[in-house]
Amino acid sequence: MKETIEMMGRMTLALEIIESCSEFSSLIPEVRTNLVYAKKQPNDSEDVLAIDGRITIVNGMPKAAGRIKWGASSHMARLITEICKRDATLRAGINFANNSKIVELLRDYSKKKNWIFSVIDRSLEPERVKIKEGDSMPWKVARAIRAADNRIPKLFYEKGAVGKEPVSVLLGENPIQVAKDICKIAKLYKRRF
Amino acid sequence: MKETIEMMGRMTLALEIIESCSEFSSLIPEVRTNLVYAKKQPNDSEDVLAIDGRITIVNGMPKAAGRIKWGASSHMARLITEICKRDATLRAGINFANNSKIVELLRDYSKKKNWIFSVIDRSLEPERVKIKEGDSMPWKVARAIRAADNRIPKLFYEKGAVGKEPVSVLLGENPIQVAKDICKIAKLYKRRF
Amino acid sequence: MKETIEMMGRMTLALEIIESCSEFSSLIPEVRTNLVYAKKQPNDSEDVLAIDGRITIVNGMPKAAGRIKWGASSHMARLITEICKRDATLRAGINFANNSKIVELLRDYSKKKNWIFSVIDRSLEPERVKIKEGDSMPWKVARAIRAADNRIPKLFYEKGAVGKEPVSVLLGENPIQVAKDICKIAKLYKRRF
Amino acid sequence: MKETIEMMGRMTLALEIIESCSEFSSLIPEVRTNLVYAKKQPNDSEDVLAIDGRITIVNGMPKAAGRIKWGASSHMARLITEICKRDATLRAGINFANNSKIVELLRDYSKKKNWIFSVIDRSLEPERVKIKEGDSMPWKVARAIRAADNRIPKLFYEKGAVGKEPVSVLLGENPIQVAKDICKIAKLYKRRF
Repeated sequence: MKETIEMMGRMTLALEIIESCSEFSSLIPEVRTNLVYAKKQPNDSEDVLAIDGRITIVNGMPKAAGRIKWGASSHMARLITEICKRDATLRAGINFANNSKIVELLRDYSKKKNWIFSVIDRSLEPERVKIKEGDSMPWKVARAIRAADNRIPKLFYEKGAVGKEPVSVLLGENPIQVAKDICKIAKLYKRRF
Repeated sequence: MKETIEMMGRMTLALEIIESCSEFSSLIPEVRTNLVYAKKQPNDSEDVLAIDGRITIVNGMPKAAGRIKWGASSHMARLITEICKRDATLRAGINFANNSKIVELLRDYSKKKNWIFSVIDRSLEPERVKIKEGDSMPWKVARAIRAADNRIPKLFYEKGAVGKEPVSVLLGENPIQVAKDICKIAKLYKRRF
Repeated sequence: MKETIEMMGRMTLALEIIESCSEFSSLIPEVRTNLVYAKKQPNDSEDVLAIDGRITIVNGMPKAAGRIKWGASSHMARLITEICKRDATLRAGINFANNSKIVELLRDYSKKKNWIFSVIDRSLEPERVKIKEGDSMPWKVARAIRAADNRIPKLFYEKGAVGKEPVSVLLGENPIQVAKDICKIAKLYKRRF
Repeated sequence: MKETIEMMGRMTLALEIIESCSEFSSLIPEVRTNLVYAKKQPNDSEDVLAIDGRITIVNGMPKAAGRIKWGASSHMARLITEICKRDATLRAGINFANNSKIVELLRDYSKKKNWIFSVIDRSLEPERVKIKEGDSMPWKVARAIRAADNRIPKLFYEKGAVGKEPVSVLLGENPIQVAKDICKIAKLYKRRF
């Protein structure tokens, strides 16, 4: 119960930070943003808190469409579950937009912050991985790690593929940290472009 | 920060309990319900978490109109602040409807649970207290305590006065406990009447 | 169908006006505001559009808690149904706060606009009328008309009674007109007090 | 004003139909759904009503994230504006998911209803069109018409491209008609797959 209280508290505070950051609206992708937070050693998406209905843009501001719930994400929940197997301290993540300007900014920012930055090139995805929806996650995470010289990245992006929007992902220990970091990045992006 | 995280987490979980309890809709008063949770030793409403816009009824279910926020309540925040001065462990509270059937149920339930039950008769309110909005709270709390043989009540109600809807109030250590208790009471009320 | 489309369109636009009027927050009573719009010759609350969960205050702004729905109001729906029996052109209404300053403003404003202004003194309400919730509406409307020399008032207020908050009511042909009028009144109130 | 009232009324009623259709949740694409309704002879997205924040899935049900607003869509608004130039009676549209099963169903359904059905193959999109976001719309609409033997399609889909999710689009005279049709399609889809 104590873990649930603290996780729910951090998610609520993180969402408050994101919903107050008008600049983040520019980083919300077409597929919308989700913010996820996994229990220790998560097994599946039911062990991951996320925003029901994702975070969208209303009146120009980021806005959660529904409540914070267990199991409310599938894609981002699978991602954080896979990440946790490699690094148990990275339990939170957020997805956001991607384009060449954002890549440039993320590369510079990662250098400055000494963050590991990586990329997943989905054009390299083997056919057998694509067959079943959801099966590509282990491949993707392995790919992002390999592209970062076998280190777990703090920040990475997926190049677009046929039918898939390119997206960026930021990881962190908890959603408050992730929310603060992404808002800093959003403010930099707004100032720069 | 740790206190804020835990308080926000408990409020979010408590709200989930209340929003899932269809029976509570029957106990939402005309003035709507608020759920409050005070910091240790609160000074004023800014030290109290509450629901912005209160809890109303949408599609027959209890629903928070806005987010959980510091300072989002005035009346219930003043009440819990005053209560905390007398008993530092009673940091959460909820207001709900009152009528003669509810009084009957609350009296029986308090007896069964060994809870201290009390009443505030606002017709006894001295004129000097009524003058300034907000000034009547110390008088009201003192009154509820006196009517319970100088013990702090867990549950009490205010009789209606001119221009004032009668309401009931349930107190507790934290909002999760309060939410669980009020939902049990709401289910009993539904079954009985 | 055409009537429903036009009624729903007017309610949606009226709500937009109210939700954009920050000054109206000061006029939302403890029992919250509802905005109602009756079909021609309404029989009961199912013939009246209203806001599910009423209009409350979120982030300092008026905000509808739920959707516009048939049957979403009981008190205000009974009122407009009763009014329609006397004047078929007055199909929309809104309730709002009441205090001595508001009464003063409404009296002045009615004079300026040549509106009929009235009052319901609930202390005069006969016991037989109070017995059943909802039965007092014909009495109240008759009272407001009598107090205005047998004319239907455009604007009136109810004095508080035991357990009843005092409220003001503005009527009009349609909810857009009502929304515009109440926002003008709210702006005047903010400027004056 | 009369046109605005009727348009807003139809959008509100159409949204009610969609939000009550649980089966439609299965047809909401990753990029989420928008429902658009253009004024007669629209010039740009400011002449098009749409859902602010799009329609997402909350508690398993379709749910509008924000209000119905002028200018709340860009992509779907450009589409309906372009369509209106060719057929002034097709003023409403909705986008939804696409995959091979959906294509199969739409083809069968169009045959049964005698609807013109078409496809846009974005792999044929010329480079000069892709350069500026938003510039591809005239090309896309022309393409969908050409693929339907120079007739305006009632229903069509876009094949996915690099970075672009495949989507389907249904057009109609007004949003109520579109909402009813898409809910029928969603129910068929649920039953069939």
